Amino acid sequence: MKIAIAQLNYHIGNFEGNLEKMKSSVAKAKLQRADIVCFGELATCGYPPRDFLEFDDFICLCEKSIESLTEMADGIAIVVGSPTRNPEKEGKDLYNSAYFLANKQVLHVQHKALLPTYDIFDEYRYFEPATEFKVLDYKGQRIALSICEDIWNVGNENPLYKICPLDEMMPQNPSLILNLSASPFSYDHAKDRIAVVKANVERYKAPLFYINHVGSQTDVVFDGGSLVVSSKGVVHDEMVYFQEDLIVYDLLEVEATLVDNEQSKHKTTLIHDALILGIQDYFKKLGFKKAILGLSGGIDSAVTAVLAARALGSDNVRVLLMPSQYSSNHSVADARNLAEKLGIQYDIIAIKPMFDAFESALAPQFTAMEENITEENIQARIRGMLLMAMTNKFGCILLNTSNKSEMAVGYGTLYGDMCGGIAVLGDIYKTEVYDLAHYINKDGEVIPQNSIVKPPSAELRPGQKDSDSLPEYDILDKILFQYIEKRKSPQDIIDQGFDEKIVKKACRLVNINEFKREQTAPVIRVSNKAFGMGRRMPIVGKYLN
Amino acid sequence: MKIAIAQLNYHIGNFEGNLEKMKSSVAKAKLQRADIVCFGELATCGYPPRDFLEFDDFICLCEKSIESLTEMADGIAIVVGSPTRNPEKEGKDLYNSAYFLANKQVLHVQHKALLPTYDIFDEYRYFEPATEFKVLDYKGQRIALSICEDIWNVGNENPLYKICPLDEMMPQNPSLILNLSASPFSYDHAKDRIAVVKANVERYKAPLFYINHVGSQTDVVFDGGSLVVSSKGVVHDEMVYFQEDLIVYDLLEVEATLVDNEQSKHKTTLIHDALILGIQDYFKKLGFKKAILGLSGGIDSAVTAVLAARALGSDNVRVLLMPSQYSSNHSVADARNLAEKLGIQYDIIAIKPMFDAFESALAPQFTAMEENITEENIQARIRGMLLMAMTNKFGCILLNTSNKSEMAVGYGTLYGDMCGGIAVLGDIYKTEVYDLAHYINKDGEVIPQNSIVKPPSAELRPGQKDSDSLPEYDILDKILFQYIEKRKSPQDIIDQGFDEKIVKKACRLVNINEFKREQTAPVIRVSNKAFGMGRRMPIVGKYLN
Repeated sequence: MKIAIAQLNYHIGNFEGNLEKMKSSVAKAKLQRADIVCFGELATCGYPPRDFLEFDDFICLCEKSIESLTEMADGIAIVVGSPTRNPEKEGKDLYNSAYFLANKQVLHVQHKALLPTYDIFDEYRYFEPATEFKVLDYKGQRIALSICEDIWNVGNENPLYKICPLDEMMPQNPSLILNLSASPFSYDHAKDRIAVVKANVERYKAPLFYINHVGSQTDVVFDGGSLVVSSKGVVHDEMVYFQEDLIVYDLLEVEATLVDNEQSKHKTTLIHDALILGIQDYFKKLGFKKAILGLSGGIDSAVTAVLAARALGSDNVRVLLMPSQYSSNHSVADARNLAEKLGIQYDIIAIKPMFDAFESALAPQFTAMEENITEENIQARIRGMLLMAMTNKFGCILLNTSNKSEMAVGYGTLYGDMCGGIAVLGDIYKTEVYDLAHYINKDGEVIPQNSIVKPPSAELRPGQKDSDSLPEYDILDKILFQYIEKRKSPQDIIDQGFDEKIVKKACRLVNINEFKREQTAPVIRVSNKAFGMGRRMPIVGKYLN
Repeated sequence: MKIAIAQLNYHIGNFEGNLEKMKSSVAKAKLQRADIVCFGELATCGYPPRDFLEFDDFICLCEKSIESLTEMADGIAIVVGSPTRNPEKEGKDLYNSAYFLANKQVLHVQHKALLPTYDIFDEYRYFEPATEFKVLDYKGQRIALSICEDIWNVGNENPLYKICPLDEMMPQNPSLILNLSASPFSYDHAKDRIAVVKANVERYKAPLFYINHVGSQTDVVFDGGSLVVSSKGVVHDEMVYFQEDLIVYDLLEVEATLVDNEQSKHKTTLIHDALILGIQDYFKKLGFKKAILGLSGGIDSAVTAVLAARALGSDNVRVLLMPSQYSSNHSVADARNLAEKLGIQYDIIAIKPMFDAFESALAPQFTAMEENITEENIQARIRGMLLMAMTNKFGCILLNTSNKSEMAVGYGTLYGDMCGGIAVLGDIYKTEVYDLAHYINKDGEVIPQNSIVKPPSAELRPGQKDSDSLPEYDILDKILFQYIEKRKSPQDIIDQGFDEKIVKKACRLVNINEFKREQTAPVIRVSNKAFGMGRRMPIVGKYLN
C-alpha cells in the first residue's frame, strides 16, 4: 500500500485556496499511484478557525469542500480533517472530525476525542468529544483514524485526559494508524512529537503516519515535520520543516526501515526559520508584499530587518532611521551600514522638528514641570507615527521589533515602539536575540558587530542604558523564563538563588504591564508560552503588585 | 432561619482586599443574627482570574483566605466560592467550588459541574467538572449548594450540557438552594436570570438564594441583582444593581411573599449605569483617579465625557479640544460648551503645527504623491499623542471614545482615536450612543443639542462626513447586530431585506479590521457579544473578504 502525506500551508477561511491545494495534491498523489492521500486537521477551513466556527455559513462552506473532495476520491482514498455537525441536541454543536473518502463516498467519519483547551487552544469552546471509535477496513488494512491530541494520552498517562482513543480501538486490531494534526511549532516541540509517536507505536505495534500542517496563521506557526514511523518504532521519515511537501510512502519500505531518519533540531536555526515563515505568511495571507520598520542601530531592529529581508526579499523591505537629539553617532552609522549590506531602501528622518512642535504645543500645560518619561514617550511615538504614515502612504505593513524581555517588563512605549502589524521578536528573550544575531552572522558579518556588542539603549535621554532601569538581561531573562514559562512564584525563583529584590520587581513589572501587551501587535509564537492568546491575564488584577 | 447575601465588588488577585470585605460582611451579618452569610463564585480571588489559576502560588493564596474565613465561621455559617485542588491524577488540576464553613470547620465542599466555555468564559481551560452532588444538613435545613451555570440546565433542557446538578441532588430532598454566581451584565440578562431561577424553583419546590458579584473587572461588568425567590416562585427581592449591599433575609418572610419585587430594567438606564461602574472600577482597581479624553464636539466624546464626570467626579476629568484645520467652528464651541457645563478642565491645542512638522519631515518621501487617508491618520495620531503625553505627565488614564459601529467596520485610526486605557463606548452601537445622549439630557440639556443633531464627521478633510464612507448608521447598526450578535451570514441578512451591496461591504469590513481591534483598548461589555475576549477571530482569516 502507498500512502501520500500532503503537508500543506492552509489559510483560515480561504476555502477556495485550501481546496485548490488539496485537489492539486490529490492529482499528484494519484500520478504517483498512491492508495491514500492524507491532509491535516480541519484542513478545509484552516487551523485555528476560532469563532468563525460559530457561523453556520462557515460550516456549510466546510461541508461544500468535503463534497468536492468526495467527488475527487476516485481511484484514491482521501483522508481529510473538517468540522462536522453534532446531530444530537445535547452537547456542543460540532465535532472536530477526520473524513475517509473513497469511491466517491464518505466511507467513515471519526471524531476527535481529546480536545486541547489550554495555552492557545480553545477546542472545548466549539467541539463535542468523540465517544465512538471505529476502525475502518480499506484495501486489506485496518485503519485507525485519529486527530492530533488523540495520540497524546498514550496508555492514559496524560493527566489531562481520561480516555485513550487508540486503546478504545485496539480490540478492533488496527494495522495502520493515521493521525491528522495541527500541531504548532515551539522550539522544543518536534522531539516531543517523535517521542509520543514512538510511544504509540510501541504500545500498538502498528505503523503510524502523522500528518501536520505547515505555515503560519498570524501568531501560530506550524512547522510541518510530518512523521512516518514503522511498527517497530523506527522513524522512516520526518518531513521537511517550514515548507510544503507531498511524499508518497510505500508501506513495505516503511516497515523495512532500520535507522531513524530525522531533521536536525538546532534551537536557533528552528527559531530563525519559524520567524521567517511567520513574516512571510502574515504578509501573503493578508495580501501584502512590502514591510517597513525603524532601524535604530540596535540589535533588535537589526535582527528584525535581516529576517524581513530574508522573508520578503530586500526589494520589499524599507527602513527608516529616525535619530533623536540623544542618538549616538554610531547608531545611524550602524543602521546605515546594515541597510546597505542588506540592499534595502533606507531614509533618514530626524525627529527633533516634530518633538519641538509637540513641546511647544504642550508648553502651556507642562509649565514648570520637569522632563520625565513623557518626553521619552513622545519621541518613541513620533517614530511610530512616521512609520505608520509610511505604511498608509505606500501600502506596507510595519514590523514591530520589541523583544520578549521588553514586552514582559513593559520597557517600551505603547503606540510608539510597540506599534506594528506583527511582533517578530515578541517571543524571543533579549539573550535569545543575541543568539539569533550570532547565527545570522555565522558565515560572515551581516549585522554590524557594533550593534551586537554595545550596551542596549533606547537613546531617549542623554547617556541612557537599558541597565539603568532593568536588571542585566542574562539575569532578567532567567527570572522571566521561570515566571512566564514555568509559572513559578517569586518565592520559588528566589529559592533558586536569584536576588529577592530583582525577582519581586521583575514579576511585578510583568503583571502591571498587562495593559500594554493587551494593545500590542500579535506575537509570532516560538516558545511554549508566548504573550497573546496562549497567556490570558486580567488587566486590573492585583496579584503580586 | 436568617440568610445574608453579601453582594460584593471583588478585585481579581487582591486577596487581602477581598478577604477584608468578606470579614466585614461576616461581622455585619452576625450583628444582624444571620445563620448563614453567602458570598459569590470564586470570591477569594475574584472573577475571572484567568491564567493566574495556573500559578500554584495563586491557589495557595486562595486556600489561605479560606483558612481565615474558616476561623471566622463561629456562630455563623459562611458560604463562599474558591478554587480547590483536584486530588485525582486524572483531569484538570482544579475545581471551581463552594465551601460551606461552620463551627470553625469546613463542613462541605461542592464543586461546580457545568463549566461555561463560550463567549468570555474559559472555565474548562482550568476546571474539572463535578461528578458528585451532596446535600448538606444545617440547622434543620437540607441545603443544596450550586455554582452559577449549575442552575442553567433546568431539567436538562440546555443543549450545552448533559447533566443537571440539581436533578442529581433531588433524591436527597433539599429544602433550600443556594447559588453562588459570577454572572456578568448584559443589557438583557437580568430578566433571563429571573426566568431561570423561577424555572428552578418551579421544578424543585425549594426557595433559592442567588448571590451575584457586583463590580467591573476591566471589560466584564457584574451588575449584582442578587435574587431571593420563594419556593412558590415569587421574587421576594432582587437586590440593587451596580452597588454593593448586604441584606439579611428571614426565610419565613421569604416564603410568605405574595408579589414579585424586582428592579426596573430599562435598557438605556442599565447601560448608562454599567458604563459608569465600568469606568469607576477600572480606575479604582488600577489605583488611578484622573481621566483625560479628547472632546471633538461630536456625540461620542460628549457622552464619554459625561459618563466619566459622573463616574470619577468633574474634578478628576480633563479634556483636550484639538481642532484641525478642517474642524468646523461649532465643533470647538460645542465642546467648550459641554466642558463648561460639566465643570471639567479643558485645554485647546490646535494640531496644525505638529501636522506641518510631520508633512515637512515626510515631504522627501511623499513627493508627488496625492493626499489620502495618510494625512487623515496623521491628524488622528497627533491627537492620540497629545492625549498620551498628558496621561504620562499628569498620571491619568486616557478614555477611548470609539463606538461599536466604528470599531466594527474599522472606521478609526489605530494609535490615533483608537488609543486609550479602556473603550467606554466600544460595545455601544452609534444608534445606541444617541439613546444614551437623550437619556443623559432627559432632565435638561447636558450634551449640546448641536452635538446630537449634526451629521457625524471625523473632520479630517474638508466637508467630510461619516456617511461618505459608511452606510447610514440606522441601517449599518442593524446589519452589524445580525452579523456580530446573531452570527448570521451575509445571505441571511440580505434575505431579511437589506441591500446586498451594503451587507457584503459591512461584513467584509468587520472581518478585515480584526487587526485593528486586536490592538485597541479593552471594551466595557454591555451586550451579549462584545469585541474582546468574548469574540475570538483570526487576523489572517480570509472568510468573506
